[in-house]
Amino acid sequence: MQLALNLAGSVSGQTSPNPPVGATVVKNGEILGVGAHLKAGEPHAEVHALQMAGDKAKGATIYITLEPCSHHGKTPPCADLIIEKGLSRAVIAIKDPNEKVAGRGIEKLEAAGINVELGVLQQEAADVNKHFFHYTRTKTPYVTMKSAVSLDGKTATHTGDSKWVTGEVARRDVHQYRHTHDAILVGVKTVIADDPSLTARIPNGGKNPLRIILDSDLRTPLDANVLNDKRADTWIFTEQNITEEQIKPFREKNGVSIIPLNSLDPATVLRLLGEKKIMSLFVEGGAAVNGSFLESGKINRLVQYMAPKLIGGKDAPSSIAGDGFNSMRETLPLDIINIEMIGGDIKIIAEPRKDDANVYGNY
Amino acid sequence: MQLALNLAGSVSGQTSPNPPVGATVVKNGEILGVGAHLKAGEPHAEVHALQMAGDKAKGATIYITLEPCSHHGKTPPCADLIIEKGLSRAVIAIKDPNEKVAGRGIEKLEAAGINVELGVLQQEAADVNKHFFHYTRTKTPYVTMKSAVSLDGKTATHTGDSKWVTGEVARRDVHQYRHTHDAILVGVKTVIADDPSLTARIPNGGKNPLRIILDSDLRTPLDANVLNDKRADTWIFTEQNITEEQIKPFREKNGVSIIPLNSLDPATVLRLLGEKKIMSLFVEGGAAVNGSFLESGKINRLVQYMAPKLIGGKDAPSSIAGDGFNSMRETLPLDIINIEMIGGDIKIIAEPRKDDANVYGNY
Repeated sequence: MQLALNLAGSVSGQTSPNPPVGATVVKNGEILGVGAHLKAGEPHAEVHALQMAGDKAKGATIYITLEPCSHHGKTPPCADLIIEKGLSRAVIAIKDPNEKVAGRGIEKLEAAGINVELGVLQQEAADVNKHFFHYTRTKTPYVTMKSAVSLDGKTATHTGDSKWVTGEVARRDVHQYRHTHDAILVGVKTVIADDPSLTARIPNGGKNPLRIILDSDLRTPLDANVLNDKRADTWIFTEQNITEEQIKPFREKNGVSIIPLNSLDPATVLRLLGEKKIMSLFVEGGAAVNGSFLESGKINRLVQYMAPKLIGGKDAPSSIAGDGFNSMRETLPLDIINIEMIGGDIKIIAEPRKDDANVYGNY
Repeated sequence: MQLALNLAGSVSGQTSPNPPVGATVVKNGEILGVGAHLKAGEPHAEVHALQMAGDKAKGATIYITLEPCSHHGKTPPCADLIIEKGLSRAVIAIKDPNEKVAGRGIEKLEAAGINVELGVLQQEAADVNKHFFHYTRTKTPYVTMKSAVSLDGKTATHTGDSKWVTGEVARRDVHQYRHTHDAILVGVKTVIADDPSLTARIPNGGKNPLRIILDSDLRTPLDANVLNDKRADTWIFTEQNITEEQIKPFREKNGVSIIPLNSLDPATVLRLLGEKKIMSLFVEGGAAVNGSFLESGKINRLVQYMAPKLIGGKDAPSSIAGDGFNSMRETLPLDIINIEMIGGDIKIIAEPRKDDANVYGNY
């Protein structure tokens, strides 16, 4: 199952809107087949693993990181295939909360006399599937917020110098997150100040996320990288006061959309992204955008890089602006998920504290 | 030697202006005596350990965390005692850089035919002695700066609510630092805002540090705890513009001194404290004081507690104010010494990055 989870983790971010799934087929301690779901529309993990196992699959055990599907989607139901191939046992990490499955895959297997064991490495499987589970439950994307600060919590000096706070290894790590998220979001101030490309530059290339710019007054410069490099689509969310004349020069650019919304508050933005089947959103600030996400309660995970340096300065910016909370009682409590050194920097992963123990509700 | 270092560590902070030292006497794998230097003016670690060993010390090995003294101070030279008791071997963690010793203790032992081994657990010994070594080298106190922030680097909400950022265990840990430092320093704004007592409230009591208030215009309220609780002396450093009339009501208070200086910049303050034999200073802010210490380059160690919570807010204060550095190139690079969880909070210990490998120069 650990190998199956590794397989699922390895395809995280490339299967959207499907979940990343891994599967292994084992008999007498020998691995007969391995598989992963590589891309929406292509065969599921079970299909690959069973194909590799061939006739030997009869009587074997299949380990799957997520309950196999029972319905006809773009591919035939995997539960049927497992039955057809004559497997005697299925070990499943976690049930699929998707209403089209939700236990029916397991029922089908059991009805066919297959011995089913559920819940092996369930927490790890929930983590691998966190984008999918959150999206399934809320119909809005899972939000990961990134910040990169000095040990004293600054993102730049008081003069605005921000290149670079963290080291190269940490900055490379950010590209991995861009690769595994469907979309990336920044405020227009970041576009104006840094002219970032917001692409996933990882070894052997990466999957570039859809680029979202929050830009109430449509101030994004026409020569910005995100409008011209054609590496991914760019959607600019504005408020309603934008004129057709303002929009016109943007229309001529390939892959660029101007989308006026009633409000740029995170709830509205996330609802629209959910409708567009965006399962996961990587928020890279700046501080004002981070502040509005914090205050909206829409952060699912925080990834914070801290450089071992002190910047100081009353006017040096920190990672989360906006108003912030009024009292200590109202502040957002977090659970620390992991702390590690990455290059010379500290990387902290945290999540809003959970009150319930529901493995799906966590996401 | 590890036991000797533990003994030394256990008395850290109570031996000033002497270094904390531990010693063990061992023969045939059996511990015959243990000792620590408990307080300036009282017997050194070697004396206690050799007394415990009695006649069995003959032919034994003594482990000492610091080179034994060779000069007559408040007590007779320990090197002479080791020779007199007939020990055959001395294992010493690190040389004493104090000009009165500086190798002469070791020379004396070797001249008497005792087998001397130097440098065992030297780095650990340097760490235990860091206040003493720094003071010996610079004639100014070793400066530990503390901060307590949220994960987004805030010390309070934008309304000023700061109770509490970190949890109880972290706040108790701060009292241990107060106990092990000769003096504690805060700005007058902290006194006005929080009216702290700045004492070391640790289990079984603690050694209260001398309290230093930086207060250019003598605004410390006459009813402040630090002026009235008589738990430790309080020195208020002001600028020169203070009148005798302003000082008068403070004179009536026991243990309170008003000390006008030409400048309240850290270099001036530390030079005066060094003259007063203060070996170690614990800086507890607020942000303006921390900023001036950062900009002066006078921080030897940073102890940062980070609570797993987000406060947010453009106007929420962070731990280090002042101007801060202008460019990323000028910022103060740190070495991370340790990261651990303490209660529910993260505790990070860091030091300004060292360019040389001199074990004394580190401090």
